[in-house]
Amino acid sequence: MIILGLDPGTALVGWGIVDTGVAHKIDTALCLGYGCITTDKSMTDSQRLLAIANGLESLLEKYKPELVSIERLFFSRNQKTVMSVSQARGVLLYVIERQGLAMTEFTPQEIKVALTGYGKAEKLQVQKMVQLLLRLPQLPKPDDAADAVAAALTAAQTVRLPRK
Amino acid sequence: MIILGLDPGTALVGWGIVDTGVAHKIDTALCLGYGCITTDKSMTDSQRLLAIANGLESLLEKYKPELVSIERLFFSRNQKTVMSVSQARGVLLYVIERQGLAMTEFTPQEIKVALTGYGKAEKLQVQKMVQLLLRLPQLPKPDDAADAVAAALTAAQTVRLPRK
Repeated sequence: MIILGLDPGTALVGWGIVDTGVAHKIDTALCLGYGCITTDKSMTDSQRLLAIANGLESLLEKYKPELVSIERLFFSRNQKTVMSVSQARGVLLYVIERQGLAMTEFTPQEIKVALTGYGKAEKLQVQKMVQLLLRLPQLPKPDDAADAVAAALTAAQTVRLPRK
Repeated sequence: MIILGLDPGTALVGWGIVDTGVAHKIDTALCLGYGCITTDKSMTDSQRLLAIANGLESLLEKYKPELVSIERLFFSRNQKTVMSVSQARGVLLYVIERQGLAMTEFTPQEIKVALTGYGKAEKLQVQKMVQLLLRLPQLPKPDDAADAVAAALTAAQTVRLPRK
């Protein structure tokens, strides 16, 4: 199963693709790619949202995932950040729904527990576990991308789709 | 100028269309329609976002507005509400940007000042001013729709687009 993980943001949307194969084996899962959809500070909110949607559409076309795993927001400090990240998240959900893709959501804590066994794990621990589990030659960076791969791995561990 | 006003929400997105004519006269402006895009509680977040986008696309196709005026979020009580309304708002901004439409944003306070001269006006005062300014036969309801017409009227008062 090909799973796309997403870590929503305004400036950066982290993404990561994990393939668990036809047999859906986690321990031999492959990382097909990871990175960030980036938008520029000079853009308006709306332009950023359009760039994010276009970036996601390109990923869906290239990797054809069967499942999308998207991180839930779970913070409260800066209301302005909550608003702008939620706007980006809304656009991601919309594009996924419009294409009729299966989708699952996890809180940052659930992802940390799934990968490290500890809900308050540091970013670096998550990056190291992603590297270890997928046998990557280097630490996945930036942490937005690593978080997205982690979201995909969490889905791989917990979600079973009906076989076609 | 045909202006679409929008009041974002998850269950309800208020909308209102104001036409200031070729001469862009506020005092003879017409209300071409108002209402709400509604989504159902039984739908998932993503399904609601898709329904909202589809609803907006229908309005754009039917009324062909030259300008969209959208209410900014300006509250802080319930973080969950802020997140879900922001997600809806993100989808609205995305659809508007994708169609290359001119767009302007106002806070609820700016809209109240524009219509009633008072930033803390009650919902009913806003509804009454919308009715008065547009010579409507009845009070516009629900207040989400009235707020959307008010957003369109605020834009009519403040925005000048270059003539084609």
